[in-house]
Amino acid sequence: MATVFYGALVTPTTGSLSTYLALPKAVLCVSHDSGIIQWIEEDVPSSLLQDVLAKHGITGEDVSLVELETGEFLIPGFIDTHTHAPQVPNIGSGQEHELLDWLAKVTFPTEAKFEDVTFARKAYTSAVRRIIDNGTTTCCYYGTLHLEGTKVLADIVHDFGQRAFVGKCNMNRHSPDYYVEPSAEESVARTRAMIAHIRSLSGSPSHALVQPVVTPRFAISCTPELLVQLGDLVAADPTLAIQTHISENAAEIVFTKSLFPPDILPTPPLHQGPKPTETTYAGVYDAYGLIRSNTILAHAVHLEDSEVKLIKERNAGISHCPTSNFNLRSGCAKVGAFLDAGIKVGLGTDVSGGFSPSILTAVQHASIASKVVALSAPEHKHTHPHAAATSIPFANRHLPIATLLYLATLGGAEVCNLEKRVGSLEVGKEFDALVVSVREDAGNPNLWGLDLDQALGRTSEVGKEELQAMLERFLFCGDDRNIRRV
Amino acid sequence: MATVFYGALVTPTTGSLSTYLALPKAVLCVSHDSGIIQWIEEDVPSSLLQDVLAKHGITGEDVSLVELETGEFLIPGFIDTHTHAPQVPNIGSGQEHELLDWLAKVTFPTEAKFEDVTFARKAYTSAVRRIIDNGTTTCCYYGTLHLEGTKVLADIVHDFGQRAFVGKCNMNRHSPDYYVEPSAEESVARTRAMIAHIRSLSGSPSHALVQPVVTPRFAISCTPELLVQLGDLVAADPTLAIQTHISENAAEIVFTKSLFPPDILPTPPLHQGPKPTETTYAGVYDAYGLIRSNTILAHAVHLEDSEVKLIKERNAGISHCPTSNFNLRSGCAKVGAFLDAGIKVGLGTDVSGGFSPSILTAVQHASIASKVVALSAPEHKHTHPHAAATSIPFANRHLPIATLLYLATLGGAEVCNLEKRVGSLEVGKEFDALVVSVREDAGNPNLWGLDLDQALGRTSEVGKEELQAMLERFLFCGDDRNIRRV
Ligand SMILES: [Zn+2]
Ligand SMILES: [Zn+2]
Repeated sequence: MATVFYGALVTPTTGSLSTYLALPKAVLCVSHDSGIIQWIEEDVPSSLLQDVLAKHGITGEDVSLVELETGEFLIPGFIDTHTHAPQVPNIGSGQEHELLDWLAKVTFPTEAKFEDVTFARKAYTSAVRRIIDNGTTTCCYYGTLHLEGTKVLADIVHDFGQRAFVGKCNMNRHSPDYYVEPSAEESVARTRAMIAHIRSLSGSPSHALVQPVVTPRFAISCTPELLVQLGDLVAADPTLAIQTHISENAAEIVFTKSLFPPDILPTPPLHQGPKPTETTYAGVYDAYGLIRSNTILAHAVHLEDSEVKLIKERNAGISHCPTSNFNLRSGCAKVGAFLDAGIKVGLGTDVSGGFSPSILTAVQHASIASKVVALSAPEHKHTHPHAAATSIPFANRHLPIATLLYLATLGGAEVCNLEKRVGSLEVGKEFDALVVSVREDAGNPNLWGLDLDQALGRTSEVGKEELQAMLERFLFCGDDRNIRRV
Repeated sequence: MATVFYGALVTPTTGSLSTYLALPKAVLCVSHDSGIIQWIEEDVPSSLLQDVLAKHGITGEDVSLVELETGEFLIPGFIDTHTHAPQVPNIGSGQEHELLDWLAKVTFPTEAKFEDVTFARKAYTSAVRRIIDNGTTTCCYYGTLHLEGTKVLADIVHDFGQRAFVGKCNMNRHSPDYYVEPSAEESVARTRAMIAHIRSLSGSPSHALVQPVVTPRFAISCTPELLVQLGDLVAADPTLAIQTHISENAAEIVFTKSLFPPDILPTPPLHQGPKPTETTYAGVYDAYGLIRSNTILAHAVHLEDSEVKLIKERNAGISHCPTSNFNLRSGCAKVGAFLDAGIKVGLGTDVSGGFSPSILTAVQHASIASKVVALSAPEHKHTHPHAAATSIPFANRHLPIATLLYLATLGGAEVCNLEKRVGSLEVGKEFDALVVSVREDAGNPNLWGLDLDQALGRTSEVGKEELQAMLERFLFCGDDRNIRRV
């Protein structure tokens, strides 16, 4: 038994940041049993559809055929590589603060409420629902510091069937008295219990939908003892993912460096070089063994060159959170330079530092951030109007549509080390996809419908160029109403 | 007969950029005959509502009482001081271009289609509907260069009952062969015909909903002869509004200066000083008498100090279009500095340079633009965390909520010289208002509903602070679904 989709399909392809596939008349077959994409045929006129099915040995009885309408297309599900489930109730609040003030005044008081499991269940159910409605099929969640509340979050995500990483925050200092863990030991014990709970839900990491992730909130909130113990925990289990914040805000960086002078740092366990004489933010995490190929580092706004090099060497991923970085006045991450360096990059909404749970908003703001970087770069001399289509490096120029699509999907999958399973619509991958509609009847007045264009004679048949234009309309004008099925 | 609203009310107040009124239990009375706000009572418990009505001589029979639900509030209608109606079908297209390329490849081909009046009627009907659905009750429209199409636009706006300025573009050079006016005389003749048509619809400027606006597209597209004749036209009629683009893009400014060297400029008619030895962009328009108190200048991204001074002297207004300025990589206008200088500033969506017809998007991007300006300003030293509430100048710091609200409403009214009639909910003004809902049942998953907060025990009664938080949620997370009535 299989489901066959016939219609337009848009997907990034493995190995390319600057091109993507736009197939106006594709046939895609998904196995019912495994949810794996069995085959894709790229250019099939409707008159040949039955022949193609027959060629693949599929007859009327063992297929469920879904024919997309004009103005609809398949796209990989969005991947949000960084968000805070307990802060969803705060979206759109406190935009006047910078990071450290915002944590104290907006964030921590709300997170503390999640000690109440009944409250947590209601709030998380609504939060996760909103994120799925926005087309996010894979999500990296920070919970609160509470074990029970975070288990509830994992249960809810599991019940919704969303692919996710769920982490309990580790934070045992520099937090308010009412919202702090009593000791490093207690923090790690709760983390172990969370890991055990999530693994009991979902089974082995290679097939699980929901996976645990070790989540030291940020270096400031963790004592050296806590980081040592978390380093030991992950060293004993190479499959355990790690997520944390890095280099978001100037004041935060100064404070971090003051807390971790070079002489208190252990020698990094992963490479036995000399001890550094100066601390970098990435160097702190690395010294405790917390930067490796399944580490997700959020923000990375003010990274030094040596940190970029270190992150590349460790093959860690970066979660770019432009909405939050603008909103909290953190700055613009140099995403183009990270891509040039070969670092894995995905997008994060960072709710509620960011004011939207939608990856579409993150796409729009990533475009804006890259344009701000390009405007302020000395190389900005209008010399490369068509750079997008060439091999010119990404640094200092704006991100083209192909790269924005990559960041929202396949790039996020790479950051999560899920690129073999999701992030693009390719044979052998799991079918995590959205049916997007850019039609008037989707009901979004901000998106001019393709069917209206056709009624007006502006567009006739949908070819590759029209499909590319549909993708651009969706990324810049779309909202949850344009996501017909998840 | 009157309509009385009872519930929460949010409004800027004349004379203040950094505070606004948030009244959780206001009573507002509108005359049925005139649509004028008759009186407002600020703090009325429901037990005293009947007494307040009685005090104003209103009995049950001659009142239609509208009680707002918890989570709803009244706010002045949004004012879009710059948009292009014929480009609404292009929203979300062509984001890879800068200004001059974008005009040639995306804009002009679409605008040319509006020569077909049937096409124009269908496209404009949908475009205006979308803009109204987004809560814009007053809008400054550019049409195309076509007389008949622009008359159709004015007819449609008039039929919808939206308050608007409608202008036919003047453009007789540096435009493609298929989309250019044949001569200055023809351009001006069509403009006169458009003015006559719109005035025949709407009556005298002091009461009209729809007014004509003289619309030289930008200096590049107008020959000196055309600008002279437009200058004569407006000099003969001081009530005629003027709108144009200014100082949007670096390449555009260089080209403008090359087209208008100082020796070809007439001496400005409004002040008989010496001829300037250097051209500025504002100086060009001023030389032709086109900058005055009812001129709306869009963008103003790269203004020189002398231009800021000139615009202030003429009491012209600036339309800040941050979505477009990011999207076309134009830069960030120094809105704070304009406000410090006492210049009138409103927001514009600049569709389709901007990718959203919603003033809410413009608010979000105006916030981001001001934060980008603040980040790059040398004064940014984290020294004024609470500057928003003080008398510290706006330049080089981010715009607080009060100022964003002002730009979206009363600032826009001032730019349009309508501040005596609309832009705030004050006694004696016309009742141009939106009923906003920040409730779950508004159906926007990106906005966490107030009623859900109440169910969770996070918020109880709505006081002034809760109402301020509701406004912030709406401005940053809201969309057309949160605008219950226009
Ligand atoms: Zn975060
Ligand atoms: Zn414009």
